[in-house]
Amino acid sequence: MFDIRPKLTSRIELGGSDVVEQMFAAARDPELISFGAGVPAPDLLPVEAMSRATVRAFQTFGATMLNYDGSYGLQPLRHYIATQRLAGLNIQASADDICILSGSQQGLDLIARLFLNDGDSIIVEAPTYPGAINTFAPFHPRYITVGMDAEGMKMDELEAALRANPDTKFIYTVPDYQNPSGITMSLERRRKLVALARQYGVLIVEDSPYCELGFDNEKMPAIRSLDDNGLVIHLGSFSKILSPGVRIGWVCAQADIIKLFRRAKEAADFQSCTTTQYMLLQYLQDNDLDQLIKNNNRVYRERRDACVDALADSMPGNVRFTRPDGGFFCWLTVDGVNTSELLMRAIQTARIAYVPGESAFANGGDHNTIRLSFSQKEPHEIKDGIHRLAELLK
Amino acid sequence: MFDIRPKLTSRIELGGSDVVEQMFAAARDPELISFGAGVPAPDLLPVEAMSRATVRAFQTFGATMLNYDGSYGLQPLRHYIATQRLAGLNIQASADDICILSGSQQGLDLIARLFLNDGDSIIVEAPTYPGAINTFAPFHPRYITVGMDAEGMKMDELEAALRANPDTKFIYTVPDYQNPSGITMSLERRRKLVALARQYGVLIVEDSPYCELGFDNEKMPAIRSLDDNGLVIHLGSFSKILSPGVRIGWVCAQADIIKLFRRAKEAADFQSCTTTQYMLLQYLQDNDLDQLIKNNNRVYRERRDACVDALADSMPGNVRFTRPDGGFFCWLTVDGVNTSELLMRAIQTARIAYVPGESAFANGGDHNTIRLSFSQKEPHEIKDGIHRLAELLK
Ligand SMILES: Cc1ncc(COP(=O)(O)O)c(C=O)c1O
Ligand SMILES: Cc1ncc(COP(=O)(O)O)c(C=O)c1O
Repeated sequence: MFDIRPKLTSRIELGGSDVVEQMFAAARDPELISFGAGVPAPDLLPVEAMSRATVRAFQTFGATMLNYDGSYGLQPLRHYIATQRLAGLNIQASADDICILSGSQQGLDLIARLFLNDGDSIIVEAPTYPGAINTFAPFHPRYITVGMDAEGMKMDELEAALRANPDTKFIYTVPDYQNPSGITMSLERRRKLVALARQYGVLIVEDSPYCELGFDNEKMPAIRSLDDNGLVIHLGSFSKILSPGVRIGWVCAQADIIKLFRRAKEAADFQSCTTTQYMLLQYLQDNDLDQLIKNNNRVYRERRDACVDALADSMPGNVRFTRPDGGFFCWLTVDGVNTSELLMRAIQTARIAYVPGESAFANGGDHNTIRLSFSQKEPHEIKDGIHRLAELLK
Repeated sequence: MFDIRPKLTSRIELGGSDVVEQMFAAARDPELISFGAGVPAPDLLPVEAMSRATVRAFQTFGATMLNYDGSYGLQPLRHYIATQRLAGLNIQASADDICILSGSQQGLDLIARLFLNDGDSIIVEAPTYPGAINTFAPFHPRYITVGMDAEGMKMDELEAALRANPDTKFIYTVPDYQNPSGITMSLERRRKLVALARQYGVLIVEDSPYCELGFDNEKMPAIRSLDDNGLVIHLGSFSKILSPGVRIGWVCAQADIIKLFRRAKEAADFQSCTTTQYMLLQYLQDNDLDQLIKNNNRVYRERRDACVDALADSMPGNVRFTRPDGGFFCWLTVDGVNTSELLMRAIQTARIAYVPGESAFANGGDHNTIRLSFSQKEPHEIKDGIHRLAELLK
């Protein structure tokens, strides 16, 4: 066989692990309680309604649904996103400020492609979303990490980081029910973040697929809504509120940036799926997504409660954990334990799976953290799984 | 507004034209006969059958259809592609040799990302697919162009190019009813291409979305089928044979390369649309795609005939054109005319649109060529449009 290695770009590192793929594989084992993948509960996905909407959409839109469309995405879908989803986060936007993407994951990729040269500095939270690290990696950024507390990114650390690295390309944050920590950035910190970004002339990437999954039905204003200077690139997605399988997310940003996204999108894959864009459009016309989200959040809230209660009941003294106000994730710190090394035993002996926190630290380091996703399991399974984890840790 | 320019990567060139977007816009003007976009005829897209298949798919697969799946794409769909589509091109493949992509366009993008460093040499046809140039551009390749005749790439030119550039990363070819020239590479040239690539240790990228659109129902063996050394990366797509709007294409290559694609795919957008993958799967189970392709090819053949006959009847002496055996495109050489400059007048005066060939030359140069796509128009419209073009050229 032809040896491809000499042909590869320097952006590729061979080897490395396939953690996400492994998590998905583990989740398919019915014996195992997996707190791995951060995905919506299957029973909350609106199968019937989507099927009905599809039939109606094919009747209404016909062959248009199966053909190419443009790289910005469907205008009426962008209009819906602006007026129905972003308005609820205080963002004032029109369809023109939006480009449809294949999930917000693609937003991260296009941001890397548009902004990063080898060795550029970017500021990320510690911990941060591992999928972002994975996507940025081939562009070889230099990471500056900023610690978090219960209110999100620590602003004194951020300011020091900006002072020391005034050429930073952007600050990447997951402000709402963060993946992986479950932490939400406070309003005061959001304002401070915008002020600092403005002062230092640095872009903010606000990656917020979970922002509508608050358990108190309160929504924090988006960071983008607090800036009137075009500094914030806001990424959103239908993945967590409706369906990840349709692969429809979006970017909302200033006009210059949206134009660049359109071109990068055209080069990457022409456009997102026409078919699922029309399916969504029809679904959103015929159904009340706000109500669905509300109902789902009640379910996720019960699961969060089950998770946090079980953690409080059963964990040994060397374990601390967050209590998220929304989203899918609890974050554990297990003093003195290497959670990556523990994972094999967790799967084989305790029959549970989790994501070791290690992959969430851009510059490596912390080996004693765990991300638990409670979104997919019933409360009794969650309790059962947490108790098994507690036994293992004791 | 914040000035983003200093933040951009060196991979971005500001300015530049939005040709594809303009072609799509022109195509929406009902007064205009557009030979622009290379898209399937809307009336040939199986709307009814796809709608029925979707309802059945939702019944069968339920919530699975709306959730995340894996980065390789659905196993049964990959199995179908291997046994039903690739086998017809003489390619022996299994599901494991395939990764599902969001159109073959994404294949080009991931290839650039996996293989290209700034300044790397790649060999392309002259003319070549403009969408490939657009996608490769941010990675700043050095292009070596090889001329074509009625049998495809000229092998003496290719050999000279390889001799002069032994470090070439890959040879990019669209061997079947090429976009834009309509030319098909002969079997003999395919064998020679594989032999040369092997001799010089260079990969071949075979981009073949049109390979099943032959008007004589004869299929040329794929280049990948002529190599047993893992040299050929084969890209395919449902876009031209079934539906571009579902955004499902594929790459078939040696195992090492498929693994790299999976990882690049995960970083780019996690996975292609779960929903449309299941829709296709059900459609392909319930319908005879081979028969659909046959029927469609009869229609495209009539359109090709109308196009070529009208060209022969009406064009002045300074115009030469190809007679494609399949696909969507005729290619015109118009001695002494700058077809890019002519386009505005064509749209405004003659009320027709075409793609100036200029964008198909990786190193620039030829200004006297035109790509005509005959796929979307009825024979009488095609004749009408060609006659208007002929008047303009006289
Ligand atoms: C923080 C964050 N960003 C982006 C994504 C990507 O989601 P999608 O591409 O499905 O919108 C995820 C998914 O897990 C996420 O947690
Ligand atoms: C030669 C060639 N390659 C790739 C593509 C991309 O098609 P898709 O991404 O829809 O499969 C096209 C579409 O026009 C093409 O002509």
